[in-house]
Amino acid sequence: MKAVVKTRPEPGFVEVMDVPIPQIKPDEVLVKIHASGVCGTDILLADWRYTGRRPVNPPIILGHEGSGEIVEVGANVKHLKVGDRVGMEALIGCGHCHFCKKGYMNLCPNWNHLGIDFDGTFAEYIAFPAVGIHVLPNSITYDEAAFLEPISIVAHALENNPITVGDTVAIVGPGPLGLFSIQAARAAGAARIIVVGTSSDQKRLEIAKELGADYCLSNGDTDAFQTVKELTNGIGADVILEAGGTGRSIEQAIAMASGLGQVFLMGFGTESTINPLTQIVRQDLTVKGVVGSRPIHYETVNRWLENKTIRLDHMVTHTFGFDEAHKAFELLKCKEAGKVLFKTDL
Amino acid sequence: MKAVVKTRPEPGFVEVMDVPIPQIKPDEVLVKIHASGVCGTDILLADWRYTGRRPVNPPIILGHEGSGEIVEVGANVKHLKVGDRVGMEALIGCGHCHFCKKGYMNLCPNWNHLGIDFDGTFAEYIAFPAVGIHVLPNSITYDEAAFLEPISIVAHALENNPITVGDTVAIVGPGPLGLFSIQAARAAGAARIIVVGTSSDQKRLEIAKELGADYCLSNGDTDAFQTVKELTNGIGADVILEAGGTGRSIEQAIAMASGLGQVFLMGFGTESTINPLTQIVRQDLTVKGVVGSRPIHYETVNRWLENKTIRLDHMVTHTFGFDEAHKAFELLKCKEAGKVLFKTDL
Amino acid sequence: MKAVVKTRPEPGFVEVMDVPIPQIKPDEVLVKIHASGVCGTDILLADWRYTGRRPVNPPIILGHEGSGEIVEVGANVKHLKVGDRVGMEALIGCGHCHFCKKGYMNLCPNWNHLGIDFDGTFAEYIAFPAVGIHVLPNSITYDEAAFLEPISIVAHALENNPITVGDTVAIVGPGPLGLFSIQAARAAGAARIIVVGTSSDQKRLEIAKELGADYCLSNGDTDAFQTVKELTNGIGADVILEAGGTGRSIEQAIAMASGLGQVFLMGFGTESTINPLTQIVRQDLTVKGVVGSRPIHYETVNRWLENKTIRLDHMVTHTFGFDEAHKAFELLKCKEAGKVLFKTDL
Amino acid sequence: MKAVVKTRPEPGFVEVMDVPIPQIKPDEVLVKIHASGVCGTDILLADWRYTGRRPVNPPIILGHEGSGEIVEVGANVKHLKVGDRVGMEALIGCGHCHFCKKGYMNLCPNWNHLGIDFDGTFAEYIAFPAVGIHVLPNSITYDEAAFLEPISIVAHALENNPITVGDTVAIVGPGPLGLFSIQAARAAGAARIIVVGTSSDQKRLEIAKELGADYCLSNGDTDAFQTVKELTNGIGADVILEAGGTGRSIEQAIAMASGLGQVFLMGFGTESTINPLTQIVRQDLTVKGVVGSRPIHYETVNRWLENKTIRLDHMVTHTFGFDEAHKAFELLKCKEAGKVLFKTDL
Ligand SMILES: [Zn+2]
Ligand SMILES: [Zn+2]
Ligand SMILES: [Zn+2]
Ligand SMILES: [Zn+2]
Ligand SMILES: [Zn+2]
Ligand SMILES: [Zn+2]
Ligand SMILES: [Zn+2]
Ligand SMILES: [Zn+2]
Repeated sequence: MKAVVKTRPEPGFVEVMDVPIPQIKPDEVLVKIHASGVCGTDILLADWRYTGRRPVNPPIILGHEGSGEIVEVGANVKHLKVGDRVGMEALIGCGHCHFCKKGYMNLCPNWNHLGIDFDGTFAEYIAFPAVGIHVLPNSITYDEAAFLEPISIVAHALENNPITVGDTVAIVGPGPLGLFSIQAARAAGAARIIVVGTSSDQKRLEIAKELGADYCLSNGDTDAFQTVKELTNGIGADVILEAGGTGRSIEQAIAMASGLGQVFLMGFGTESTINPLTQIVRQDLTVKGVVGSRPIHYETVNRWLENKTIRLDHMVTHTFGFDEAHKAFELLKCKEAGKVLFKTDL
Repeated sequence: MKAVVKTRPEPGFVEVMDVPIPQIKPDEVLVKIHASGVCGTDILLADWRYTGRRPVNPPIILGHEGSGEIVEVGANVKHLKVGDRVGMEALIGCGHCHFCKKGYMNLCPNWNHLGIDFDGTFAEYIAFPAVGIHVLPNSITYDEAAFLEPISIVAHALENNPITVGDTVAIVGPGPLGLFSIQAARAAGAARIIVVGTSSDQKRLEIAKELGADYCLSNGDTDAFQTVKELTNGIGADVILEAGGTGRSIEQAIAMASGLGQVFLMGFGTESTINPLTQIVRQDLTVKGVVGSRPIHYETVNRWLENKTIRLDHMVTHTFGFDEAHKAFELLKCKEAGKVLFKTDL
Repeated sequence: MKAVVKTRPEPGFVEVMDVPIPQIKPDEVLVKIHASGVCGTDILLADWRYTGRRPVNPPIILGHEGSGEIVEVGANVKHLKVGDRVGMEALIGCGHCHFCKKGYMNLCPNWNHLGIDFDGTFAEYIAFPAVGIHVLPNSITYDEAAFLEPISIVAHALENNPITVGDTVAIVGPGPLGLFSIQAARAAGAARIIVVGTSSDQKRLEIAKELGADYCLSNGDTDAFQTVKELTNGIGADVILEAGGTGRSIEQAIAMASGLGQVFLMGFGTESTINPLTQIVRQDLTVKGVVGSRPIHYETVNRWLENKTIRLDHMVTHTFGFDEAHKAFELLKCKEAGKVLFKTDL
Repeated sequence: MKAVVKTRPEPGFVEVMDVPIPQIKPDEVLVKIHASGVCGTDILLADWRYTGRRPVNPPIILGHEGSGEIVEVGANVKHLKVGDRVGMEALIGCGHCHFCKKGYMNLCPNWNHLGIDFDGTFAEYIAFPAVGIHVLPNSITYDEAAFLEPISIVAHALENNPITVGDTVAIVGPGPLGLFSIQAARAAGAARIIVVGTSSDQKRLEIAKELGADYCLSNGDTDAFQTVKELTNGIGADVILEAGGTGRSIEQAIAMASGLGQVFLMGFGTESTINPLTQIVRQDLTVKGVVGSRPIHYETVNRWLENKTIRLDHMVTHTFGFDEAHKAFELLKCKEAGKVLFKTDL
C-alpha cells in the first residue's frame, strides 16, 4: 500500500513509498483510510523539531487525523464489524495506570500516540486498537471525520461549558485549532469573537473572517491585548482560547483577559514570562492547560459534526493524494492553508 | 397618577384609579414608568389565589416587571441621576441575614417583593430603592427592559451553563418563562429544542414555533415524556427547563430526562409524585429548584438584550394602557397572549 | 468449591453448595476470594423481592462486594499477574454504547452486575473481567477491600466535593451506605453530622454514634426534618445524603434541606410525594440521583482506605464462613448488624 | 485616641500618635477596636515599597485586620446596634460598577481598602461603613475575629471545594496566609500537607509543623518541586496553595503539581517564568488567581472560627500594645513571628 513515511531521524526524509498492508492483532481492526488531515505536528516531525514525551523511532508512517471503513475485525472484537464507517482516537492510554484508571488517558505517562509512536493514518490501511474506534453517525462524511482529533481538543477545552451566552471570546493563534474554535465558541453563545494572529497570518485571518469572527487582529506579537481591551470598554475578554503556542502569544492571551476571565492553553507553548500579580492574581483569572482529549470529547465532536455546529466550508482549503505529500506539508508550513486533507481516492 | 390597584383581599377588586405620586426616601429614586409587563402572578393576586411567603395587604399597586426613567434622586444616592434609563429588580433582600450576607438575597426570608409587598410598576411613577436599580445600556428599549425580571429567572436557571453545545433541550410549559427560554437555550448551543404544552396551549405553541422551537408537543399532561424519548432515539433530553408549574408537568419533566440529565424547576409547582428509583436515581439526574434571581442575573439579561440574544418579536403579542388593565389580565388568563405589556404613553 | 447460590426464582432457596471452580476467558482473571460483604440487595434477591433492570436467572452465585488474590491470568491480560491482591467493580458496562463511550458505564443500559447477572463473590473462586479489577495498595487489607463497592457509591455521591468545610450534613438511613457516609462526610469537613433513622434502627444508630455522628435521630418516619431545622437555627442541613430508600425517607431528606442545599439520593427509593414549590423551588435546592459508581470512584476509595479516612472499626459487626450464610442474611435483615462479612478462611 | 500612623510618603515615618476620634457618617458605625492583626502589607507601606492599584496618601492610620465593639451607629443604619461585637471587611467596593453589580467587589476598579485608602484599624476607634460589618457569633473572640480578613482570602481560594478527601496539598510560603491554609486544608480532607519555605523560614516552618503539616521543606527557592514529586511517588501535589508571592515560589508551585492539579495564587507574586508546555499544558493544570475576598468568604470564616476549624494556638506568637508598634513590625519583618496582634487593652 501507499504510505507517507518518516524514514530517518533527521530533518527531511519524508518519503511516499510502498509498504505492506499491516496485520491486525486480536484486539484490533483494519481500517481502509478514506481521508486524513495534516497537522502542524506532522510538519514538526518532518523537520525533526518535534519534542514529545519520548523519542520517535523512524521509520514510521505519519498522520494522526483519519477516517475510514473497517475491512477486517480482530478475533476479540465483538462490537465492530466490516463496513463500519469510523474515526480514530490519536492517544491510546495504557488502561491501568493512576490516570487511565480514573479515565484520564490523556494524562497517561505511557500513552501511545498515533502517527508518532505507532504507524499513522497517511496510508491506505491502518491496524488500529478497537478501543480507540468511534463509529460515525451516518450523516458525517469521511472528510469531516478526518478532523475528529483536532476538534476534540477544542471540545476538551470547552468541556465544562466555560463560555456564557453573551461572552466576548478571544482566540489567539489562527491555525487549525484556532479556526475550529471559532465555530464552537459561536455555538456556545459567544457574542463577540476576536481572532488574534500576527502579520504572517493574513491568509488565515481571512479564513477566520469567513468563519464568522467579528474582529481579526494581526498584532498578536505586539499589543493585541490592548486592542482587545479597547474593543471591550477596557474590560477584556471573558474567555481566551490560546492556540498560538509561543511564549509571546501566551503572554498576550493572559494579558487580554477580563476580571474572572478564563484562559485555555491549547497550543504547545514554549517558555513564557507572566506577571501573576497584575495579570492572574489581581484579575482572579483561571489559566487552564488542555492536553489531548479523552473518548468523551470524540463523542462530543461526533455530535457537533452531526448538528453542523462545525462545518468544513472555508476550513479545508486544499485536498491532495499521498503523492503530493511534500506540497501539502509546504502549504501548511507557509500558513497559506486552513486545513489540508489527504484523500485516498484522489 | 394613574395606577392599577388591588383594593381588597378577595377575588376581583382590581381597580384603575388615581393615587398620589409617591414620596421617595433618602435611599430611593423616583422612576417614571415607561413600560411594564403583566405576569401570571398578577393574575393570581387579582383572583386572590396567590400563596406566597407572607400575607398580601391590599390596597397595593400591582406589577413587578417595569422600566422607566429616573426623575428624582434620594439624598443618599450618589451613583444614579435624573434622566437615567433604568430597570428594576423585583426582590429586595434585607441585606444582612444569613443568605443576604452571602449574596443570595433570593433566599432572604425577609425579602420584599415589588408589586406584592410594596407598591408595584402598574403606575405612572414608582419610588424604588437605589440598590435594586439597573441602568440600561443605550441600545435596550424600555419595552425590552420591562422584561428584565422574568428573563432574569431564565438567566438564573442557566447560570452555570448547564447546556452543552449539541444538547437536546426540552422546555415544559409555554408560558412567558418557557417562551423566553427558547431563545436563551438556542443561544447556549441547544441543537434541538422541544417545547411541551397541553391542548389549551395552541396559541402559545404557535409562538414557540415562531421563536425557533424544533418540536412543539401538546401532550404535556399525558405522555409527552414518551414523545421526547422517541425524538431522541430513546435517550431523552439533556436539559429540561420546567416552567409549567403543575404537579403533572413536573412529573413529565423528570420522566423525559436522559441519563445525567438536568431538570430545572422554574415553575411554582404544586405537589408532585415522583419515582426516584427509576427516574432520578437510575438516571443519575440532577433536579434543581430556581427561585427568583440575583443582581448578577439582571446584568446577564442586560447583556442578552444588548446582543439581541433575546428579542421581543413574536413574544409581545399585546400592548395596552393602564385603562385596559382588565382586558390585559383576561388575555393572559386565557393563554391567548405571549407577553402583555402596559405602556404609559398609550 | 463452596458457594452461596440462589437456586430458584422464588423466595428462599439460597443454598450453600459445592460447585466447580469457574474457567476463565482470555480477558479474565481467576480470583481466590478472601473476603466478601453482604448487601441489602443480597437479601432482596434471597427473598425474591429484587426489582432490577432485567430478570435474574437462577441458579446464580450471590455477592457483589469482594476481594482476593489473583491465581490465574487470561491470555489477553497483560497488566495483572498471579499473586496480585485485588478488589472488583460490581458493574461491567458494555464498553461501546452512548454512555460507556463517554465513560459513564454506570448508566450503560446493557451493564452486567456481579452477583446478579453473572456469578458473584460468595464463593471460593471467581472468574472476573480484567477491566473491572483494581489492584490494592499494600496497606489495605482484604477485609477493607471487600467494601470497595459500597463505599464507591458514597465516593460517587461526593465526587464533586459538595461538602464545604463547616457544613451541617444529614445522613438519612443508617444502613451500611449511611454508616460509611459518616466517616467520608467528616473527612470532607462536615462540622455537624446528623444521622436519621427510625425506631427500628436503634442498633444502627448506636453504631452511627460510635462512628462519630453528632446527633442520631429515630424520628425519620415522622418529623425528623423538624428536628434538623431546630438543630440548625431554623436553617436546615447543607448537604443531605439519602440512603434510606423509602418514599418517606426521601420526602424527609428534601424537607430538611437549607436554602441552596444539596440532596443526594443513594437509596433505591420508591415513589415519593414532594412539594416542589415550598421545598425544591423556594429553597433553590439541588436533588441528585446517584446510581452505582464508575472506575474513578473505586480509585478514590482505595485512597480513602489507604489514608484511614474510612475505618472498619465499629462498621463490621459480624464475620462468618459461607456455611453460616443463612445466619448472616438474617442478622442484616433484622437491622442488628452494621456490615456483615464472609471470610473464606474461617 | 492613640493610633499608628504612616505620616509621610517615604520609608519609615510610622508614628504612634494622638489623633481625634473620627466622626461617623449616616451609613457608618463607630467601632472601638479590641484587636488588630499586623500584615505584610503594613510592612510594605511602612517601608514605602507597597505598589497597589492607586497612590497611597499619608497621613493615614495603618491596619486592615480588626475587630471590636460598636459604640455609635449612623442615622441610616438599621440592622446594627451599640454593643454589637463585630469584624470588618478590608475592601469596600463602589457598589455599582460592572463587577460590583455582579457581586465581585473584590474586582471593583474603584474599591477602597481599609488602612490603605482610608484610615485603618491600628487605632482605638474607627469609623466604618455598615455594609462591610460582620456581626460575630458569640463564641468567637475578638482576637480570633481580628483575622477574619486574612483567613477570608484562604476561604476565597477554597470557595469551590477544590480539595478532595485524600488529596496531597502543598502550601508554598509559610507566612500567615500559608499557615492559616494548613488548618483549612486539613479540615477539607487533605491527607498529606507539605509546607514549602526557604532557609530563612525556619521559625515559621516550626509553626507549620505544630499546626499539623506532615512535611516541611526549606528548599522552596531551589528544588522543592522535586521533593514534592518524590514524596508522592512521582505524581505531584493535587492542590497547591501559593502564598510565597515571589517569581521563584510561583514557578515551584506550578512545577510541583500532579496531572489535573490545581494551583491557587494567593501571594502577590512578581514576574515569573513558566514553561506552559511541560507544566501547565501537558499536565492539564488549572492555575487560578485569588485576589482579596467577598462578603461570603467572611461568613465562611465566621463559621470556621465558630467550629474551631481554624484555631489561633501556635498562630499568634506575639501580642503588643500600639506603643510597641515598631517592635511588632520588626518581628514580622524578620520572619520570627507567626501572626502579631495589637490589643487595645494592653
Ligand atoms: Zn495534531
Ligand atoms: Zn495509563
Ligand atoms: Zn412575575
Ligand atoms: Zn436577607
Ligand atoms: Zn450492594
Ligand atoms: Zn454500555
Ligand atoms: Zn493584609
Ligand atoms: Zn465597583
